[in-house]
This record gives sequence, C-alpha cells and structure tokens, in this order.
Amino acid sequence: MKLQDLPPQTQPRAELAMTDARKVPVTGLHDGQVFQGEDWVAEECPVALVYNGISHAVMLATPADLEDFALGFSLSEGIVDSPAQVYGIEVQSERSCDGQPGLSVNLDIASACFARLKERRRTLAGRTGCGLCGTDSLDQAVRAPSTLPKDTDTVFRAAAVSAALGQMRERQRLLGITGATHAAAWCSAEGAIALLREDVGRHNALDKLIGALSRPGVPVAAARASEGFIIVSSRASYEMVQKTASAGVTLLAAVSGVTGLAVDVAQGCGLTLLGFARGQDLSVYSQPQRIVL
Amino acid sequence: MKLQDLPPQTQPRAELAMTDARKVPVTGLHDGQVFQGEDWVAEECPVALVYNGISHAVMLATPADLEDFALGFSLSEGIVDSPAQVYGIEVQSERSCDGQPGLSVNLDIASACFARLKERRRTLAGRTGCGLCGTDSLDQAVRAPSTLPKDTDTVFRAAAVSAALGQMRERQRLLGITGATHAAAWCSAEGAIALLREDVGRHNALDKLIGALSRPGVPVAAARASEGFIIVSSRASYEMVQKTASAGVTLLAAVSGVTGLAVDVAQGCGLTLLGFARGQDLSVYSQPQRIVL
Repeated sequence: MKLQDLPPQTQPRAELAMTDARKVPVTGLHDGQVFQGEDWVAEECPVALVYNGISHAVMLATPADLEDFALGFSLSEGIVDSPAQVYGIEVQSERSCDGQPGLSVNLDIASACFARLKERRRTLAGRTGCGLCGTDSLDQAVRAPSTLPKDTDTVFRAAAVSAALGQMRERQRLLGITGATHAAAWCSAEGAIALLREDVGRHNALDKLIGALSRPGVPVAAARASEGFIIVSSRASYEMVQKTASAGVTLLAAVSGVTGLAVDVAQGCGLTLLGFARGQDLSVYSQPQRIVL
Repeated sequence: MKLQDLPPQTQPRAELAMTDARKVPVTGLHDGQVFQGEDWVAEECPVALVYNGISHAVMLATPADLEDFALGFSLSEGIVDSPAQVYGIEVQSERSCDGQPGLSVNLDIASACFARLKERRRTLAGRTGCGLCGTDSLDQAVRAPSTLPKDTDTVFRAAAVSAALGQMRERQRLLGITGATHAAAWCSAEGAIALLREDVGRHNALDKLIGALSRPGVPVAAARASEGFIIVSSRASYEMVQKTASAGVTLLAAVSGVTGLAVDVAQGCGLTLLGFARGQDLSVYSQPQRIVL
C-alpha cells in the first residue's frame, strides 16, 4: 500500500513491451553493496487535450488509459456535463517543433459545451502559471463542487474501506513495476475494487478513474458510481475532493493525510473524507454520519 | 523520512498559533478502537502571484514562506533571470467575490522582465487546464532546462546524501504536526541540511527552497548553491529536475522514484538524478560520474 515500503529495483515478471514504463540503466547502493543494472521507470509524457480542434491544456501524464483521462478531465473540470456530450476521443502521437515527443487527445464535444469553453477561455487572460485549473485570479480559484445528495441511506462500513485498501496494492500493476506511481480506485459498498487507474500524478489517476466510471462497457455504470466509494494512494487535497464530488461519489478515503481546505470543501459539499486509511486504521474528517466505525 | 510511516494523530508539542496548520475535529479507528478528538491538518490556500499589478497565476499552497515561494517560482519559471530583477515582494490577505479567503503575493519586477512576461502571455491563448506552466500546446510543453556545468570537480559522496536524509525528518516541522506535507532541502557537500522548506505540494516546496536560496541573509548565498545538493521527500518528475537545474544545483535526490522523462531531462542537462534514496540505499539514474558510491 505504501509507496515507500516497496523495495527499489522491483522487476516485472515478464518483460512485456509497455507504453507506460520503460527500462533505464541504473547504478547505486543497496544494503551496503554497489549494484549496476536496469530499472523500470514510469513514463511521463506531455499530453495535449484538444477540444474540437483547439488545443486547450497540456498535462504531464502516464500514457495509459488516455481516453479515460480525457473524459474524466472533461467531466471533473466541468467542460462537459455528461459523457453523452463527448462524441469521440482519439489519441494521436505527435512531436513538437523541437522534436519532443508528446501525445494529443482529440475530443469532439457538443457545440454548446464548446461554445461555453470558448467563452470561458475568452474571459481568461493568458497565463503561464499552472496550479488551479482555469484560474489566474482568486475569484476563480476554489470552485464550489457539486453538492452531494444528503440522504443518509448510503452508509459505508469502515471494514469495507479496509477491505478495499487491502486489495489495492496487488491491483497497482504500474506501481509494482516502477515503485513510484499513484492510483485511484472505485470500490463497491462491500469493499471490492471494481476499477483502478494509475498515473505518475495523483490528480491524473483520479481523472482517469472518473472517466472510466463514465464509459459504457466498464464494470460500473456511471449511474451506480454513487453506490460505492473511492480510495486514493495519495494525500487528499482540495482538488481530489472537488473531483470526487463531481463524480457523485460521497466517500473519499486517502492513504495519507488531508489538507484543511479539503476538509472545508468536503464538509461544505457533503462528502465524507477519510485520511490515514491504512490497514484497519482510518480518520474521518467530515460527514461522519455516512460511515459505520 | 517516510510520510506513510508516521502515526496518525501526531500532535505538536505546544499549541502555537499557526498559519500553516490548524486543528479540525476528527473521529475514526486506531488499533481497533474508536477515537474522537482533534487533529492538525496542513493549510492549503489559493495564492495569487501578481506581477506589477497583473494577476498571473493562482496556486494552491501552504501559506508559509510565501516570499520564498514567489521568488522561487519567478526564477524557476524564467519570469526573472536573477533575484536582483525582483524589487519588492508583498503578501496580502484577500477575499474573492464570493468570500473565499486567499492570499495575493505582489511582486514588483524589472520592466524588461514584465514586458517579456506580457509578450509571453499575449502569445498564449487563455486556457482552463492546469499542468504544465505556460503551455496550451505541445510546443511549449517541455522546456529545455539550464545546462549545468560539465566540470567533474564537484563530486558528492553517497554517504553525504544519506547523512542529509537522516536529518530530514526531524527538520520537517509541518510534517511532524500534520503527517502530510512534502519538503525540499538544500544540503552542503558534507551532507548538512542548511535550508528546508515545506508545502502541501512538492513543486511548491522546491520553489520555496529555490527562492530561499536566492534571498540575501539566508545561510546559503545563491552563488554557493551549486556547491551543495537538493533532497526532496517526494518522487522526482520532469518538473522537479527542471526546477533544480534552474537553480544551478547539479544533484537531486528523491526519497521515492523517478519518471522516465525526469531521467531523460536530467541526462540531457547534466544533472545527477537519484531516486529511492532511503537510509543508506540509493539509485543513480543519470550522470553517475558526479557521485562516489
């Protein structure tokens, strides 16, 4: 479960051709001995999200499940309101002018969403800082997330969260190979992991999961996403809470700690936020009525 | 050293009034027992960087050492080329239109830098995605970092890196209280930590450190930064390599893993990149001639 507990130099069982990890030469010290060999590292690649032909944002991400990523980002950032407004997603390999490799994800979205996006872009001055999506002033900084249903019929057992955490590590294929990636997983109310996505970035892993939850043909239909909960291998900051709420999921459990703003926003929008969820332990920071300890 | 190894509910020794952490109510399970009480969480706050009166970017950051953060961001993002081009930095408390609290950091920068920034902003379309600073297309995605001096006179001992790692945990005050923040530290060639900065975000912690290294009156003059190395409590992605190289520092050691792009960029710009640096262990992914194992 813990990134730092993994031994370095973890090797995959079979040396498959992979797009999300590769081998690099390595030397170093382990248990007082000098070693030399090869090591698997997770790929990190610039990924441009292009809406109706207009390049909108570039993120560094692991090049796996990019259709999920593009759909999840579009939903969690409010570019589209439903998956039905995305008519098509196509991933293309590209090179920048100076020859750097990258990937473009081309989304064909409903014209009403595109018009709204253009309007939002028009009202933003260009900016060169990253951080908060869509913001170059404080007024745009913290978006109020979707308010979650207040019904207390959906109650989760702490034991189900622990059960899901117990399955997480073995489902993190890329972590097993590289020892350095984050994961986000959707779990049934009983604590079975139904979907898991990985990325070098924790926000990206969650966006991939949210996208996957919304795609037809996956084990969980979006309509049922609210019946389960999400666990993440990382800390929970404001953006993780905002993204989880946007998917209609009412409980987020993080392996590491939570931030003050994450607690405020979770309390405000009705999300049950858990931190330090490890083994049988967990801490509940908001909306505790939704969990049975 | 490892975030995940810290016990939850870590309490500070004295309950000082702090701006970078606060207490929140918490309930949960620990060792099979239900508990209820209070817990310290790290603050996360929208911070707007304002250059010569123009709001440029908003980031979520821990509200401590914001002058360091603003100066480090300005340097590592190439907005200014030297600290001398920043004439003044002032932090102001603000509220957005809808009453959300936030902070503005107002920088007064040289007119030539401001003109360059305006030109750069003019050529960028507005965008709503975050991720890569200054990019909404692949051409701008991966900036070539400063090329580091090729001299091999500056050689570091693996034992010095291990010594620095051994001091890191006790220097992470905010981590000790909250259990969930990252740190970046500059260390002398002998492995003594001279400067350390913390933040909920790993990029922010490194920007704070780079800013602190460049300020007059700190233990390390910027001119001497290249004589030491930087350790980070997190993984090392491309941006961490780029920022470290921008400060003229030739060795970056990460407690967790490295990404493929981080290895490529480190190799290209001449930075020695270490991952899985824990206890006496470490893995060297680029420019191994600069480290004595």
